Amino acid sequence: MAAYRCPGCGATYPADRKLWRCVCGGPLDLEPGPGLRRDMIAAGEASLWRYRAALMLSAPPLVSLGEGWTPLVTRRWGGAEVRFKLESQMPTGSFKDRGTALMINHLAEIGIGPIHEDSSGNAGASIATYAAAAGIPCRIFVPAAAPRGKIVQIAASGAEVVGIPGTRQDVTAAALAEAEAGRSFYASHNWHPYFIEGTQTLAFELWEQLGFRVPDNILVPTGYGSNILGLERGFDALERGGEIARRPRLFAVQAENCAALAVAWAAGAADYVPFTPKDTVADGIATMRPVRTARVLAALRKSQGGVVAVPEPEIADALAALGRLGLYVEPTAATAGAALTHLLRDGTIRPGETTVAVLTGHGLKAADRIGELLRVG
Amino acid sequence: MAAYRCPGCGATYPADRKLWRCVCGGPLDLEPGPGLRRDMIAAGEASLWRYRAALMLSAPPLVSLGEGWTPLVTRRWGGAEVRFKLESQMPTGSFKDRGTALMINHLAEIGIGPIHEDSSGNAGASIATYAAAAGIPCRIFVPAAAPRGKIVQIAASGAEVVGIPGTRQDVTAAALAEAEAGRSFYASHNWHPYFIEGTQTLAFELWEQLGFRVPDNILVPTGYGSNILGLERGFDALERGGEIARRPRLFAVQAENCAALAVAWAAGAADYVPFTPKDTVADGIATMRPVRTARVLAALRKSQGGVVAVPEPEIADALAALGRLGLYVEPTAATAGAALTHLLRDGTIRPGETTVAVLTGHGLKAADRIGELLRVG
Repeated sequence: MAAYRCPGCGATYPADRKLWRCVCGGPLDLEPGPGLRRDMIAAGEASLWRYRAALMLSAPPLVSLGEGWTPLVTRRWGGAEVRFKLESQMPTGSFKDRGTALMINHLAEIGIGPIHEDSSGNAGASIATYAAAAGIPCRIFVPAAAPRGKIVQIAASGAEVVGIPGTRQDVTAAALAEAEAGRSFYASHNWHPYFIEGTQTLAFELWEQLGFRVPDNILVPTGYGSNILGLERGFDALERGGEIARRPRLFAVQAENCAALAVAWAAGAADYVPFTPKDTVADGIATMRPVRTARVLAALRKSQGGVVAVPEPEIADALAALGRLGLYVEPTAATAGAALTHLLRDGTIRPGETTVAVLTGHGLKAADRIGELLRVG
Repeated sequence: MAAYRCPGCGATYPADRKLWRCVCGGPLDLEPGPGLRRDMIAAGEASLWRYRAALMLSAPPLVSLGEGWTPLVTRRWGGAEVRFKLESQMPTGSFKDRGTALMINHLAEIGIGPIHEDSSGNAGASIATYAAAAGIPCRIFVPAAAPRGKIVQIAASGAEVVGIPGTRQDVTAAALAEAEAGRSFYASHNWHPYFIEGTQTLAFELWEQLGFRVPDNILVPTGYGSNILGLERGFDALERGGEIARRPRLFAVQAENCAALAVAWAAGAADYVPFTPKDTVADGIATMRPVRTARVLAALRKSQGGVVAVPEPEIADALAALGRLGLYVEPTAATAGAALTHLLRDGTIRPGETTVAVLTGHGLKAADRIGELLRVG
């Protein structure tokens, strides 16, 4: 059985314990896995389970909807050849399925349920869907004003949808209260260490799809940072496996209107810096306070990458440009295109480099919003 | 260069001709391909292009969004183990991408464009998206009252969306008039022979995913029948390759309220029989007059399968049951679940047989409708 470790207080726990955070209140880390070598890949498996030998599960997955092994396509963008990673083509329409698949399989393996989660969108849909597939009763707390399409996707899985009036923080508070009441396990994508065990497979796929080479740059729309931390964990595993000697630069992309990481980055801070958010169409990354802010900032710094904050009007422009390339994504994902334009223009990224932009969610997730942004008549 | 043949008048044409139907007005067939043997499969390719050696294109595909090689998952249904083929997880959210990918790559290969198409839904979104990816100018004629989400997906690709007042037949009439005006090629998913060249890969995948064995039964939600004709073509190719000796039974699933094939089937007719349609939530298969009715009926008969017409209220029940298994699909796709219940109950399909139900479209395609059907509060 794998172990959890708290980087804050140093406590360790076996990973079959019913924990989503440390008793000290801090987020837990899952210990490093065995590392990944190319001869460990199950090449016949067209999903993230091709890397099962490097993942911290005891048994084969109980539940899979074919998540992972998403396409990597090449397009011209801002005078350069860029690779777009289509995480939008996951089973529930967003990258969250990587983390969810690992977390739910781990919970099923150690016999945890019922579960609950707070999410206004993609994570809720992902967790509700995989919980249904695993036969785990599930409840999702959502803002009472959440878009109907998101609520329908959650409810269709048979999960109970609990609308909470007030702010997004009130929804989280309700989920925390439920966790403390002890009737249900808080399967939080923002807290649970196995979520990052899943998102690390993004690193594995990019490396394998590029012919067992790491790219020079990876741009990721980022809220809490589970993809950034997953990429770091994944490249660590490849380093341990002796497969890679250098690391890509990681760029977290945020919407300027709500950019916790960008504010801290600009201040040169090592951890969270308070800021005043404004509305953004990139709702999937409008995060007030990332759980692992310091860890995400450190990962970006160590990679020699950074944070790009995208002005609001440029999101719609990028969305339109991606659509005309046959890449129909939600506004949150389009921030990667807008950031790419900036980094190419200011010379941070050069056209000859191998650059990947991660498109995190499908356009079908947000048709109403997209219709407004693109002024579809 | 491959050849087209008209089964009606016997005319033949090289397939690089700018044709979507025969000069006699009938639909064209593409001549049989080389057949498929398992040693022809490009096993490293996690898309329908793993079967490229069996497909009638001269060159490697110019455009791909990773279409095909969709998951096949097992669930309990009506006391049996059933395989569900998740065509819902295609790039644009529906099975249409198989046919579109072949048709657009063929058109790109022979230098055709601009193109147009008439569709109220999934085919329009698919063709607009692939046309954008291929850089082919595209116009989609839609009913003026088409659901906004469908129009947004089409418009986001940069395609021109032309709303036509009146019935669905009026929309087709507008597309036909445009074709006759000669300014644009009618890239019709219902007419073009390459569309079926693409849908045949469904047969290849099922055979390969079942360990190079054909299933006993395949249920497919069916409007015009491109999946039924594709399955027939695909199993023909496997027979020519010497890979299979027996054939699965094919069951076309329709909504009782609008069931052109079921009406003809019940009458024992070899071709179209007039009928009066009613509204159905399964809008993707509400086809008044399938272009190749006789061919579809013959394929079903030859396979010793049939047509199942699903009563309207059972569609919502099946949709809910699929959702609780983690399979979020559009109402059209849910008809396969309802038909499965019927065929298991009446003994046409026995629990010990290998049965596949094809889930043709993603729930994200129709969240509003699903919310109504499932009475999401």
